[in-house]
Amino acid sequence: MKIAKKKDDFSKWYTDVVLKADLADYSPVKGCMVIKPNGYAVWERVQEAFNVMMKSGNVENAYFPLFIPESLLNKEKAHVEGFSPELAVVTIGGGEKLKEKLIVRPTSETIMYAMYSKWLKSWRDLPILINQWNNVVRWEKRTYLFLRTMEFLWQEGHTVHETHKGALDMVYSALGWYKNLYQDFYAIDGISGIKSKSEKFAGAEMTTTYEMLMPDGKALQGCTSHDLGQNFAKVFDMKFADRNGKTGIPWQTSWGVSTRSIGALVMTHGDDNGLVLPPKLAPTQIIIIPIFKKSSNNEKLLKFCFKLKESLKAFRVKVDDREDQSVGWKYNQWELRGVPVRIEIGEEELKTGKLAVVRRDKNEKSTISNKKVEEGMANLLEKIQKDMFDKTRRFLKENTRVVDDYSDFKQIMSTKRGFLKAFWCEDPDCELKIKEETKASTRCLPFNSKVEKGKCIYCGRKASQRWIFAQAY
Amino acid sequence: MKIAKKKDDFSKWYTDVVLKADLADYSPVKGCMVIKPNGYAVWERVQEAFNVMMKSGNVENAYFPLFIPESLLNKEKAHVEGFSPELAVVTIGGGEKLKEKLIVRPTSETIMYAMYSKWLKSWRDLPILINQWNNVVRWEKRTYLFLRTMEFLWQEGHTVHETHKGALDMVYSALGWYKNLYQDFYAIDGISGIKSKSEKFAGAEMTTTYEMLMPDGKALQGCTSHDLGQNFAKVFDMKFADRNGKTGIPWQTSWGVSTRSIGALVMTHGDDNGLVLPPKLAPTQIIIIPIFKKSSNNEKLLKFCFKLKESLKAFRVKVDDREDQSVGWKYNQWELRGVPVRIEIGEEELKTGKLAVVRRDKNEKSTISNKKVEEGMANLLEKIQKDMFDKTRRFLKENTRVVDDYSDFKQIMSTKRGFLKAFWCEDPDCELKIKEETKASTRCLPFNSKVEKGKCIYCGRKASQRWIFAQAY
Repeated sequence: MKIAKKKDDFSKWYTDVVLKADLADYSPVKGCMVIKPNGYAVWERVQEAFNVMMKSGNVENAYFPLFIPESLLNKEKAHVEGFSPELAVVTIGGGEKLKEKLIVRPTSETIMYAMYSKWLKSWRDLPILINQWNNVVRWEKRTYLFLRTMEFLWQEGHTVHETHKGALDMVYSALGWYKNLYQDFYAIDGISGIKSKSEKFAGAEMTTTYEMLMPDGKALQGCTSHDLGQNFAKVFDMKFADRNGKTGIPWQTSWGVSTRSIGALVMTHGDDNGLVLPPKLAPTQIIIIPIFKKSSNNEKLLKFCFKLKESLKAFRVKVDDREDQSVGWKYNQWELRGVPVRIEIGEEELKTGKLAVVRRDKNEKSTISNKKVEEGMANLLEKIQKDMFDKTRRFLKENTRVVDDYSDFKQIMSTKRGFLKAFWCEDPDCELKIKEETKASTRCLPFNSKVEKGKCIYCGRKASQRWIFAQAY
Repeated sequence: MKIAKKKDDFSKWYTDVVLKADLADYSPVKGCMVIKPNGYAVWERVQEAFNVMMKSGNVENAYFPLFIPESLLNKEKAHVEGFSPELAVVTIGGGEKLKEKLIVRPTSETIMYAMYSKWLKSWRDLPILINQWNNVVRWEKRTYLFLRTMEFLWQEGHTVHETHKGALDMVYSALGWYKNLYQDFYAIDGISGIKSKSEKFAGAEMTTTYEMLMPDGKALQGCTSHDLGQNFAKVFDMKFADRNGKTGIPWQTSWGVSTRSIGALVMTHGDDNGLVLPPKLAPTQIIIIPIFKKSSNNEKLLKFCFKLKESLKAFRVKVDDREDQSVGWKYNQWELRGVPVRIEIGEEELKTGKLAVVRRDKNEKSTISNKKVEEGMANLLEKIQKDMFDKTRRFLKENTRVVDDYSDFKQIMSTKRGFLKAFWCEDPDCELKIKEETKASTRCLPFNSKVEKGKCIYCGRKASQRWIFAQAY
């Protein structure tokens, strides 16, 4: 069960952890991965958490078809241009060559909005607030587990509003949910902001994002929330009788987060012993391991363990009572799988009622009295969750640097990387040159950025705000 | 919002209800449907209920690829023959013609078992108990909402066991869960049993099923649970080191239930006013409707309604406080959507504290004291759930007939239909002839069928058990 060192070979370490912690595996289909039960259980926690947030905003789940007729996808020009190199196309169905090709959805704007257009009649039908959890396909030949796969799972929210303000409020609500999801559940700090013109979604007026910094100094885009303006509404002929009896054109948003986020989770928190999961997303939060003795008392020991499990039923707990594996093997196994807390129960613990508790994130041992174990565990899990987040907050701060000189920029990007805050004139040519020369792209313009007098780091022309640059996954 | 009468035109009535209760809609892709939030919310209740059952059996959720390489699907002969006429095939990916075609999964045996074969080493790895909730595609040109669609949602459980007995136990556990799901949640009685050779799953040794009878006298197969024997294990070269250090070949099962079941739900319980949902699957269980007066007191009325909603928070409750719709319109609207209980709140109810309560299934009005409303509602919802099930139990009994004469058989099948219990010699030729002549197929051999001395209803040769015959959806 050896895994590479995180510092020595980050990429190999990452793949080792994903494979050996049984999160995912390669499949016989190039570009597609299998999400194993351990990995999928994390995604189920994410779904639960995000469903609660969406429900608070009156968003409902639904399901739209996997296939999009080619003609429908072609309706919005920028959209189809953005996606056409990545499409999987069905040309044969039921043994016959199809008259019109069907595209396996890379995203569902077009198929959903064709329906919305049919449903929308009056302002009374607005807002339309629908989400779907599904699978989408964007062609890839190389697989990087979770991070780059041809098929991935996500949720895509698609809403329709009477006014632009209504749509913008939705864009920021969704982004707020994502920020909450990443900070409070994934325990990963990041920077929210607006994407540049060249980085925004194909067909959107504006794209907002939550950008995280991975331990190797590369950025990972956590989600996107788009203001679609009236672009798709016009193309799909969406109209409604407004409050004044006139014909209105609605305003739209779309937003999504995918299983890529599990890749970010692994990279951010994992260590040389494997996965480290934040308590809120851990399928198993506490593992109880009885230390069997060859001689005696194992029955009593097991009874104690299962009673302990029962008193911890507010949490997700397992007892590892396998008799054919050593205690050391079990410790390694559950560390590898990232379980936040391990409780070791031997004869000593049975006698004293003081439980030996090890937290996975810091590998620190402490004792908790069996009498106060429920409260103690609640506090410990909360503390672990918080400490894990704080660690990423420090890392983000330490690795976000202000630069005003392009040679510094290049030097940093070729060594330690990280987020660089640099003035940019907002000319796409400069953005492209920087990317060609340093592999760093604009990640976002952070919200509430100051307007200052500055000079574009590339061309020296006037610039008024510092953008975040980074090399990105 | 007029819908056809259930007795006059059952098929039109069904489609009217599905469309007008906002359960689903036709999509721009022939054969594919859109499941609208109202319909999807029912599916979410089903998922919740079934996840609990599966978890009790230690089954875990996971996710496997959408695409299956053609060569992999072709490995099991009976399997590929069964599915090949229904396949959707991807021939273009990322702008290039593919060297090997990819099949959009019609079911996932082959892709999952290729992985299982890789994972399985020792008896310690067994049983493998994995389920996935996903979308599958089986080519269809005609759409019958929920009942016949090219793409549908389902769960597919796939397990691997050391022994044939272990696999058989799993087959019957899964079927037991389905029976529980249909009887306790969908409130639909049915008959469980074994499929005939010609009706079993392509590649299975034995297929078990839960067959329900729709109000038009036609059968609907509710689910299947298959004993796959060692067929796939051999084809996919699945082996394991057994407890005696020898090489064993494992035994497998697969089992599934799909969104077709929502079609059964609509057909079984609906009436001329629309949908009737059993409380356990109803997204909204109780609708509170304030009877606004033009003159006064509406604020007090609303306050009362929301306080009532608060005291009913153990249930899924909504208050319809829209001011631009009449009370009568709202009654119709919520009846159409099948909400099990309506509470009407007017000035009278405010004064007396006696609430007017209408149950959807029987359209019966009663009063419940506001003081005991929580208990009263719990009892009422339970009673509705039970009454709805009992009604289907009576219907099933009344429409399951023993026949021993083929002219009776033909006569019944051409008029009132229903389930017919008839001796059959188990020769596929007789089965085929009966189907050609009456459109009735064997639905199942019920569990615990008596072994008797009988004569095949078609050929008169020796037969020992009565099979269930019906025309089927």
